Amino acid sequence: MKYRIEHDTIGEVQVPADKFWGAQTERSRNNFKIGVEASMPKEIIEGFAYLKKAAAYTNHDLGVLDKDKRDAIATVCDEILAGELFDQFPLVIWQTGSGTQSNMNCNEVIANKAHVNHGGDLNSSDRFIHPNDDVNKSQSSNDTFPTGMHIAIYKKIVEVTIPGVEQLRNTLQQKSIEFSSVVKIGRTHLMDATPLTLGQEFSGYVSQLDHGIKALNNTLDHLSELALGGTAVGTGINTPEGYSELVAKYIAEFTGLPFITAENKFEALAAHDAVVETHGALKQLAVSLMKIANDIRMLASGPRSGIGELIIPANEPGSSIMPGKVNPTQAEALTMVCAQVVGNDVAVTVGGMTGHYELNVFKPVMAANTIQSAQLIGDACMSFNNNCAIGIEPNYPQIKQLLNNSLMLVTALNTKIGYENSAKIAKTAHKNGTTLREEAINLGYLTGEEFDEWVRPEDMVGSLKV
Amino acid sequence: MKYRIEHDTIGEVQVPADKFWGAQTERSRNNFKIGVEASMPKEIIEGFAYLKKAAAYTNHDLGVLDKDKRDAIATVCDEILAGELFDQFPLVIWQTGSGTQSNMNCNEVIANKAHVNHGGDLNSSDRFIHPNDDVNKSQSSNDTFPTGMHIAIYKKIVEVTIPGVEQLRNTLQQKSIEFSSVVKIGRTHLMDATPLTLGQEFSGYVSQLDHGIKALNNTLDHLSELALGGTAVGTGINTPEGYSELVAKYIAEFTGLPFITAENKFEALAAHDAVVETHGALKQLAVSLMKIANDIRMLASGPRSGIGELIIPANEPGSSIMPGKVNPTQAEALTMVCAQVVGNDVAVTVGGMTGHYELNVFKPVMAANTIQSAQLIGDACMSFNNNCAIGIEPNYPQIKQLLNNSLMLVTALNTKIGYENSAKIAKTAHKNGTTLREEAINLGYLTGEEFDEWVRPEDMVGSLKV
Amino acid sequence: MKYRIEHDTIGEVQVPADKFWGAQTERSRNNFKIGVEASMPKEIIEGFAYLKKAAAYTNHDLGVLDKDKRDAIATVCDEILAGELFDQFPLVIWQTGSGTQSNMNCNEVIANKAHVNHGGDLNSSDRFIHPNDDVNKSQSSNDTFPTGMHIAIYKKIVEVTIPGVEQLRNTLQQKSIEFSSVVKIGRTHLMDATPLTLGQEFSGYVSQLDHGIKALNNTLDHLSELALGGTAVGTGINTPEGYSELVAKYIAEFTGLPFITAENKFEALAAHDAVVETHGALKQLAVSLMKIANDIRMLASGPRSGIGELIIPANEPGSSIMPGKVNPTQAEALTMVCAQVVGNDVAVTVGGMTGHYELNVFKPVMAANTIQSAQLIGDACMSFNNNCAIGIEPNYPQIKQLLNNSLMLVTALNTKIGYENSAKIAKTAHKNGTTLREEAINLGYLTGEEFDEWVRPEDMVGSLKV
Amino acid sequence: MKYRIEHDTIGEVQVPADKFWGAQTERSRNNFKIGVEASMPKEIIEGFAYLKKAAAYTNHDLGVLDKDKRDAIATVCDEILAGELFDQFPLVIWQTGSGTQSNMNCNEVIANKAHVNHGGDLNSSDRFIHPNDDVNKSQSSNDTFPTGMHIAIYKKIVEVTIPGVEQLRNTLQQKSIEFSSVVKIGRTHLMDATPLTLGQEFSGYVSQLDHGIKALNNTLDHLSELALGGTAVGTGINTPEGYSELVAKYIAEFTGLPFITAENKFEALAAHDAVVETHGALKQLAVSLMKIANDIRMLASGPRSGIGELIIPANEPGSSIMPGKVNPTQAEALTMVCAQVVGNDVAVTVGGMTGHYELNVFKPVMAANTIQSAQLIGDACMSFNNNCAIGIEPNYPQIKQLLNNSLMLVTALNTKIGYENSAKIAKTAHKNGTTLREEAINLGYLTGEEFDEWVRPEDMVGSLKV
Repeated sequence: MKYRIEHDTIGEVQVPADKFWGAQTERSRNNFKIGVEASMPKEIIEGFAYLKKAAAYTNHDLGVLDKDKRDAIATVCDEILAGELFDQFPLVIWQTGSGTQSNMNCNEVIANKAHVNHGGDLNSSDRFIHPNDDVNKSQSSNDTFPTGMHIAIYKKIVEVTIPGVEQLRNTLQQKSIEFSSVVKIGRTHLMDATPLTLGQEFSGYVSQLDHGIKALNNTLDHLSELALGGTAVGTGINTPEGYSELVAKYIAEFTGLPFITAENKFEALAAHDAVVETHGALKQLAVSLMKIANDIRMLASGPRSGIGELIIPANEPGSSIMPGKVNPTQAEALTMVCAQVVGNDVAVTVGGMTGHYELNVFKPVMAANTIQSAQLIGDACMSFNNNCAIGIEPNYPQIKQLLNNSLMLVTALNTKIGYENSAKIAKTAHKNGTTLREEAINLGYLTGEEFDEWVRPEDMVGSLKV
Repeated sequence: MKYRIEHDTIGEVQVPADKFWGAQTERSRNNFKIGVEASMPKEIIEGFAYLKKAAAYTNHDLGVLDKDKRDAIATVCDEILAGELFDQFPLVIWQTGSGTQSNMNCNEVIANKAHVNHGGDLNSSDRFIHPNDDVNKSQSSNDTFPTGMHIAIYKKIVEVTIPGVEQLRNTLQQKSIEFSSVVKIGRTHLMDATPLTLGQEFSGYVSQLDHGIKALNNTLDHLSELALGGTAVGTGINTPEGYSELVAKYIAEFTGLPFITAENKFEALAAHDAVVETHGALKQLAVSLMKIANDIRMLASGPRSGIGELIIPANEPGSSIMPGKVNPTQAEALTMVCAQVVGNDVAVTVGGMTGHYELNVFKPVMAANTIQSAQLIGDACMSFNNNCAIGIEPNYPQIKQLLNNSLMLVTALNTKIGYENSAKIAKTAHKNGTTLREEAINLGYLTGEEFDEWVRPEDMVGSLKV
Repeated sequence: MKYRIEHDTIGEVQVPADKFWGAQTERSRNNFKIGVEASMPKEIIEGFAYLKKAAAYTNHDLGVLDKDKRDAIATVCDEILAGELFDQFPLVIWQTGSGTQSNMNCNEVIANKAHVNHGGDLNSSDRFIHPNDDVNKSQSSNDTFPTGMHIAIYKKIVEVTIPGVEQLRNTLQQKSIEFSSVVKIGRTHLMDATPLTLGQEFSGYVSQLDHGIKALNNTLDHLSELALGGTAVGTGINTPEGYSELVAKYIAEFTGLPFITAENKFEALAAHDAVVETHGALKQLAVSLMKIANDIRMLASGPRSGIGELIIPANEPGSSIMPGKVNPTQAEALTMVCAQVVGNDVAVTVGGMTGHYELNVFKPVMAANTIQSAQLIGDACMSFNNNCAIGIEPNYPQIKQLLNNSLMLVTALNTKIGYENSAKIAKTAHKNGTTLREEAINLGYLTGEEFDEWVRPEDMVGSLKV
Repeated sequence: MKYRIEHDTIGEVQVPADKFWGAQTERSRNNFKIGVEASMPKEIIEGFAYLKKAAAYTNHDLGVLDKDKRDAIATVCDEILAGELFDQFPLVIWQTGSGTQSNMNCNEVIANKAHVNHGGDLNSSDRFIHPNDDVNKSQSSNDTFPTGMHIAIYKKIVEVTIPGVEQLRNTLQQKSIEFSSVVKIGRTHLMDATPLTLGQEFSGYVSQLDHGIKALNNTLDHLSELALGGTAVGTGINTPEGYSELVAKYIAEFTGLPFITAENKFEALAAHDAVVETHGALKQLAVSLMKIANDIRMLASGPRSGIGELIIPANEPGSSIMPGKVNPTQAEALTMVCAQVVGNDVAVTVGGMTGHYELNVFKPVMAANTIQSAQLIGDACMSFNNNCAIGIEPNYPQIKQLLNNSLMLVTALNTKIGYENSAKIAKTAHKNGTTLREEAINLGYLTGEEFDEWVRPEDMVGSLKV
């Protein structure tokens, strides 16, 4: 491999000749050989591209960066956002806890690529743009990295998580309406209980997701607050007057999202409760989705020896010889995602609570886990929706049979023949393995016609609008 | 011990003669000998007292319970709320997951005490009020227990948690203002950084708690939704028309809190995402408080070999021989509480995600953990506030010495004598273990007067209003 | 209430006249009003009683405590162990993180009670025994509290946890043997699969618990290491020669458990990885028990609309009118315990990883959670065993029906009539809702006799010895 | 892109022409678009390569696979192990919870590559080797995936985790010996305490890691048990006599690791407590490493306003202008890893406890988290060792100054001049901000010579061998 020599304050470093990164990135590659390569999420790099461009515009507007440099920086940022430079970001999550080295990776790549765009030669030490003095102007790792992670997480939430959950929510809502007259046996403690409609059952899932989306949206205010402008310790040292507000305005403009400058920059650097808060809502969604997916796979279990009330789509071969063995694979993927998100929540919590003084140094691990959780929930909801939920159908014969076999329906006779006689019917049916209707007639308490008139599960399900 | 005989549908049970509980409570005592006795939180029992009274009023208003019984039930509920009957609730958290047995414990105690209040004899089988037919009328364990737990948690949050956190927040805010001109060294990566004021540092804590209180308040909407009226499976079977809304209205009236009936009762029985949501906010507060308490104890460390920038109150003997060894015991209690709350969050999460079909059967464990967390955070904040935060004082000489010794202040000279000369001053001072001022003069770059005029930490801290 | 005046180095304190505790305990009561009163586990107090007695014996043997004082201390320790003095320990978990105040509570109660036992008057300042100079001799909170917690946890593990788990393991093993010829349908992905015996299914549970018990036993070595002798920072300052080994020997003798002195006292004070390790094994058991209890309640679900392969004991009234609605209440209690233990594990983890320098100050929260987990698992296993597992019976007709209805059995015909014909039988039966036997005959591939001879589920279950 | 047509029992699928995978892999790619591509860990694929080769050998030995096919399968397995085919495994973690699709991915790639190796054409439907009938012979996803994950995890533990931890442990042990005479101030509650040596302090870290390695080794027995031979539900249906033992023997031979066949296959498919157990030990190591890394970065804090007792290597530019600002970046990476591992532990726990009946379907998420944790701990220890620990040096002047300034040393005078006088010296020094020596002389209690003779910190540190 061919190399060129780059310098930093420590000395010389060999950098692969075809890469735009510089000395500090290269040092970090060598000093942090931990886990898979290039694990720092690309969403963070994109967040940096937005903020570096916004900083360049702000610095120019405030008179501390000339227009040529502003535009040169902005051009490379746009290249990054177009996905053209991702192989220039080789660093891992497990680096400096402030993300300094990824900030420098961005600074170096932007400066060097701008230099090349400008016709420069990377083997020359005479450079058009300096990574620190120009690209990082009015910035510090300590305020850029949290800004980049807020941008990355916010975008992921609104672009992937919420659309995925809403899509599934809407399908379940549609199913709830479709199934609003499908009366079925209820189950509490996993045991037979009074009936409800399948639509009502699904309406509970819809309500869970509605509350979950609302909870997630509630966290976006905190997440919209950007640290940028706090620089090293939150005081904003080395920033021009008006910088914080203007740079947030540019970021809001470039991303199309309602970012504002954090009212308190000391919190914004030293704590990441906003990320803890958002991940808490993702965890709540994981809790809801675990319940929903578990229910659906249990209701679809069988085909002969399970509950069998739902039919789910067969997306892949189950057993080659056994028809009807449709494994609930989408539910399995979704519940595995939920397990991961619940675990990630603890990683984020531990990171969030272990900051010291003016700086939390668990930024990369908090960001990476939150981005992963947001992506997984959105993707898994979409996958579950497209490959399972939209195809769910009631197994009408099974639902009807389980309902009619149920002994719980006897409660409908209390007011007609009294509690004692009703109980006797149920006990006899339970003992004999027969139906209530059979034993009601056998015992002579009522006729078949009376039974059919009085024992109407559809009258036992209330009138919930779904 | 003397006993009387009580009955249920399984048969006879011996009950201690001096207790009002009945057969089902006694069975539960014997069947669930798990952990310490009577661990079901008393707050849950109080929640039941509110809802049983509300149900009696609602049942009466809707024509299914006569006035005498309503008033008899209400009287015992008031006795429970007055704290007179807590020895009548011997059951543990680790019982039926729907809390059925605690519901029956309430039903039995209310019925039997009402019977005695009415002049009845518990040895007679002729009873004035029936625990199921009267006290539990229009109810099921499945909707009463979640209602009781929402009442208990909501009350705890507004009566204990929020007042405790706000008290601490207000003290820290007061300190932030008091310390607004105390310039000190900043620390990032635990290393010396540019200065800020102690007031600014504390303002970050205030901002964390402000965001935390807001996040907690955001969850109260979901928590205000009551399951009552859903009865067995959410359909509201066996409730009179209008019951759900009216009973919620009564609960709101009796508690003085804005409870409403849950729009979707199927969620309200089958999932407890509202509790997951609220506990998520408690966990966020735990994360914030861990950071704050850690900072304060580290800043107060010493007296000679630590950071020593803060002086905290001495509440108990530290070392008898060693003056100034004031252990940060309040911070230790608070951080232990935070560890507990972070753990409780996982317990609540596991419970929340493991419901099946129409019923979540992790209700008691979810409720108990949330009540504990809410209590501990409120109490620990109040204790930390009263016994530590309000007495925090800056250690002015130490703050000043650390600031003046700092090498970071050299950055103020960049614009006066250039970067290279500034760096040389710092390097020389670092090598010699001297101050910047000494070496600046020694090296002949500037005079003492110039140093004092140019190196002014108070000009490096921005103008944050706190 | 009547009070007496006690003193410490800070000054005077009013103490309830009928209590043996002194000034430092009273201060702690007032300074830490957090959560329920007297929450410090009594097992910790017992652990202190063992170690204070052992220290007195060791101090006497090594010539630094006279015999009268040794015996006076030992007598009160024995009174504590006899359960006579528990109302003398009012402190909470949420105190100094080293447990200093509970150590002083023990010192004060032992000294004052010994003084009274000796005929002394607590209103006199002339005392027979001094809490610090005598009872705490050669000790520090920093080495006593971790010693007390190791004693408490070890005892709980061997006296409650392991016996409870083993009892359940043995019952399940007995059931596994009893059910070794009960062939039933297997289920993977919750879907029908090839058969196994009910005995084999239960043997998996036994194997889980065997591995769990082994894992728990593996942790006892680390837990048997005692910190006592490390005193303030691990160096053993202020202890006589030979103290560490001898005091551990006495503790081993008094408890009957194989305690030894920790080889490295610096770890023993500054970190509690032994507790983390032990709780990790408790968590593993919780994972196993969650699986087992979930399986059993799902297999017992019904009576008509669930799986219904198991019959579990009815311990309390389920539905008064509905026979066979036996709620799996013991499984619910056990799974709630598992959720708690999983949460406690995180609390212990957070506490374990947040120690600083020479002392971990999350001792009480780590101890309390571990004691609770150990107690709950033992108790819940015993309760589940006595009230559920020992009464589990197969529902033979249901097991047989589900097995015979299964389409998976067709795999037995592959070698007789070929894969294609076998698959056709299964598909036809699935389509028509009929049995394999019916369609095999209808399709003319084989006779009923041949079917009965070739399709023998009992030949499909291997020959596992259980 | 060019495609070929592949078939499975559902129908035709287009597969990229240059890929060896088949229909089922392609379906999975399309049905599970969740998270980043190809996230199934390559270590799992390697585990499959070992087991597929072992199964081929076993099948041949037991007479159910001919030698040509055995060798053809083995050759492709060796190619996979040589790293040549990783681009043939595009599937994600978030698939079927049994890992069926990754098993089929392996079967398809092995069969098709063997076919091509054998001179075959993938566009022909006439194939030399069948993915199910040959490559998957005597196997099921249900027993292969857990076997593959045990192989992957076991290898990672012994090849990466333990060597990494041991390397760090050995360095810390070396430092402990080197620093055995460096007397320094101890700190408890973060406050000054009696002295110890820096070597003693480091010996505590060594002891933590020794116990952690032992705990991890304790889990390897359970992990060495392989599910292979259990096939679909644990009964071993469709395996030849003697298969389980022989296939485990081959795996042991090929991997060089002591794998055995699991005594109970029902546990081995339905529960993954072995993975829970191993991850529990990884979490314990994370707890230890968090403590160690926190201590080291706090001890290295400064250079002027922190503790400053340690000097750590400068691996990258800290502040360009500020000498001595060496950020503890390796400690930050390591502690972030610890946070991740603690979170992963919860993900593994949730997966482990949510299995149903004969199959746990959280296999991929459990495996992926455990492999990640094992890799991260090993790598991060190695990185921390190489880039930080081996370069740690005491800051002798600072250590000496903090020690000599300490007021705790006054305890050495108790036996010389009495407790009261000693305390007076300390109080005066604390009040005046002076040293004990100065005030001892000023107060006239002793001479400077006496002070130097009597107050010898090196006599207060015990005689611990490190």
